[in-house]
Amino acid sequence: MTDIATRVYNHTWKIDPIVRSVLDTDFYKLLMAQTIFRRYRDVRVTFGILNRSTSVKLGSMIDIGELKEQLDHIRTLALSRGESTFLRGNMFYGKRQMFSPDFIQWLEEFRFPQYHLEKRGDQYELLFEGPWIETTMWEVPALAVVMELHSRAVTKGLGKFELQVLYARAMTRVWEKIGRLKKLPGLSIADFGTRRRHGFLWQDWCVQAMIEGLGKHFLGTSNCLIAMRREVEAIGTNAHELPMVYSALAQDDRELAAAPYKVLADWQEDYDGNLRIMLPDTYGTKAFLERSPDWVTGWTGARIDSGDPIAGGELVLDWWRRRGADASKKLLIFSDGLDVESIERIHAHFKGKTRIGYGWGTLLTNDFRGFVPDDGLDPFSIVCKVIAVDGKPAVKLSDNPAKASGPREEIARYRRVFDVPEQVSMPVAV
Amino acid sequence: MTDIATRVYNHTWKIDPIVRSVLDTDFYKLLMAQTIFRRYRDVRVTFGILNRSTSVKLGSMIDIGELKEQLDHIRTLALSRGESTFLRGNMFYGKRQMFSPDFIQWLEEFRFPQYHLEKRGDQYELLFEGPWIETTMWEVPALAVVMELHSRAVTKGLGKFELQVLYARAMTRVWEKIGRLKKLPGLSIADFGTRRRHGFLWQDWCVQAMIEGLGKHFLGTSNCLIAMRREVEAIGTNAHELPMVYSALAQDDRELAAAPYKVLADWQEDYDGNLRIMLPDTYGTKAFLERSPDWVTGWTGARIDSGDPIAGGELVLDWWRRRGADASKKLLIFSDGLDVESIERIHAHFKGKTRIGYGWGTLLTNDFRGFVPDDGLDPFSIVCKVIAVDGKPAVKLSDNPAKASGPREEIARYRRVFDVPEQVSMPVAV
Repeated sequence: MTDIATRVYNHTWKIDPIVRSVLDTDFYKLLMAQTIFRRYRDVRVTFGILNRSTSVKLGSMIDIGELKEQLDHIRTLALSRGESTFLRGNMFYGKRQMFSPDFIQWLEEFRFPQYHLEKRGDQYELLFEGPWIETTMWEVPALAVVMELHSRAVTKGLGKFELQVLYARAMTRVWEKIGRLKKLPGLSIADFGTRRRHGFLWQDWCVQAMIEGLGKHFLGTSNCLIAMRREVEAIGTNAHELPMVYSALAQDDRELAAAPYKVLADWQEDYDGNLRIMLPDTYGTKAFLERSPDWVTGWTGARIDSGDPIAGGELVLDWWRRRGADASKKLLIFSDGLDVESIERIHAHFKGKTRIGYGWGTLLTNDFRGFVPDDGLDPFSIVCKVIAVDGKPAVKLSDNPAKASGPREEIARYRRVFDVPEQVSMPVAV
Repeated sequence: MTDIATRVYNHTWKIDPIVRSVLDTDFYKLLMAQTIFRRYRDVRVTFGILNRSTSVKLGSMIDIGELKEQLDHIRTLALSRGESTFLRGNMFYGKRQMFSPDFIQWLEEFRFPQYHLEKRGDQYELLFEGPWIETTMWEVPALAVVMELHSRAVTKGLGKFELQVLYARAMTRVWEKIGRLKKLPGLSIADFGTRRRHGFLWQDWCVQAMIEGLGKHFLGTSNCLIAMRREVEAIGTNAHELPMVYSALAQDDRELAAAPYKVLADWQEDYDGNLRIMLPDTYGTKAFLERSPDWVTGWTGARIDSGDPIAGGELVLDWWRRRGADASKKLLIFSDGLDVESIERIHAHFKGKTRIGYGWGTLLTNDFRGFVPDDGLDPFSIVCKVIAVDGKPAVKLSDNPAKASGPREEIARYRRVFDVPEQVSMPVAV
């Protein structure tokens, strides 16, 4: 029996919206937004999309009208009553009322602000200018829209069975990866794949496959909407934008040198336990650790998000030990371009030395490599980064100079202030 | 929106029927039935299911109650008005009104007759006794029911995602096979996979994949129901049961020796063109050809259904040439346990020498090899064969003695009458 009502209802959609909920974003955005809301809501921050993979000519693949429709649709979204209830009533990281009533009230009233979109050659310039608390909300949905429009562009010409087999292959690949992960003793892994996912429905499938395949070894997903619908934990802590904005706000070199630790000081006022995970690589992990105040040693763990993961993890473990902390009780979270091979390698190396967790992103939710001609669905490296803060440029150094951002002279200044020597560049796939 | 009516409707089914139409059978059954209807409708023929793969313990895997329910459901089926219209109005093999009005009227009134089911150790004995025109109709649906109940038994414990990935893998495999077949110049291939299919929906999927993937190189399917629904040709000619019954009816050795040619004489009264495809291996291809009357040379082609396909094809080609026929205009149809590798090998050998076609069966519609533990879904060799005719035993020799059937002393007599020397046994996978 055909459900006529559903078909007619579907016909009334002018577009097939990619992002359909304010909660279709990463959980750490909400955690960071609350910290921003309390302290910096009026700082003006510009975010911009940067496609590092210039060979992927998004400007000619994606129709500007369709991109506008999707972004405009996001601007119509508002937190629903049920979503608000979920945020108010749910337990996050073992804690009830993680979000204060005034922040949730703000989120209920929040609407996505204006965007600036322009075609520049064969790429798009997509910028978000305004109060930090508003522009920060664009990062994840904007990336997800561009990624899914790219997927749709590539898959557009495929026949019904080619499509079915495309997803059959992708499902088989994810399931085989899960099969390999099952063999890792004491695994703790989460989905971090919202921003560069193949598509929303596909991320949702991957999460459900992880639930069935890994059971309690699957910690949850960074995607709040999927966490709510699939009744798993929402996972995440904080990102580079915090030290980048704090640093850009510094009035002089002394304040700049202190900025990354001010981020941690503010954060630990708001959150504790497994949310006190530092992200030490914004301006070079080694110098960040050496120059840190003693109280930073008390944090629960660190997220290793650039450079060689084993070298980076060892650096932090060694630092804990030298500072007299029990490294075996700490937590290292790996999240940089992970796939099963690297997870296995990291696991073999660190197992038993400390607690470890994995934030598996793009190669969980967007591994269609080799499935269409000309590698058309291979993942590519696209980010949405802080560009300017109250008119001043924002800078990131990273442990991999291929991931650095900011004007050249400012990068030089940050290198000097943060005592970062020459770094070795590594290829960035995703 | 959930379609409540559909859900409630589905709940009212006590079972999920496997065979839901009289037309869910092979086309050659209807062609043979018409010939039987015209000449031998009252001959009493017993068919029986034989599982050659005794390691597959169907008796303990399949619940006898469920098997009965499925067979009983088949006994409730009747040709629908639309199905009758399809048979009356459709063009088969370029011919309108292939089936005479009196035969279709008989088919409209046909109901499946009683069956005899008993558990014998860890296997089932399933027999069909009665008028040939009725018992012949059981062969394909009975096998399809046993096969699908076997698939259901094996997949019963699988989780939702394990199941989804199982079919994802199977789809990928079929699609990759189709991709390889696409490369064969001048390919003509049909689905012959009804009887030993994984399940009805899966066969239907495979046919649709062949339509999309191979276009005009996919000739059609042996399954009448799927041919009707997917609007492709219904394909097939005749099977071993004709010479087996004709031979069993022979009063003496002279009549026995003539029986296989009497089959052809009757058949060519009823059908012509691409339906005049002989099946020479019932009592040994070599002797059958040598002893055949001259008019047999005029037939369109031959189906190679046992033994080494290249040797068998060459035997027939050589015979045509020696009898002065233009072998390049003849048609060889290969149908014995084909898979992509054997199709490629046969194609490379015979391409350019004659017209060739493939009837791809079990390894199209039931290739789940290696997808579940303990090879539980590997295809196995199960057949439904003529056992007795008016109380006398039926015999088949085949070009592969592993496929022979009948009592030992009768096999010896047939060998003598048909002049069949010692044969080489080949493994039978499907």
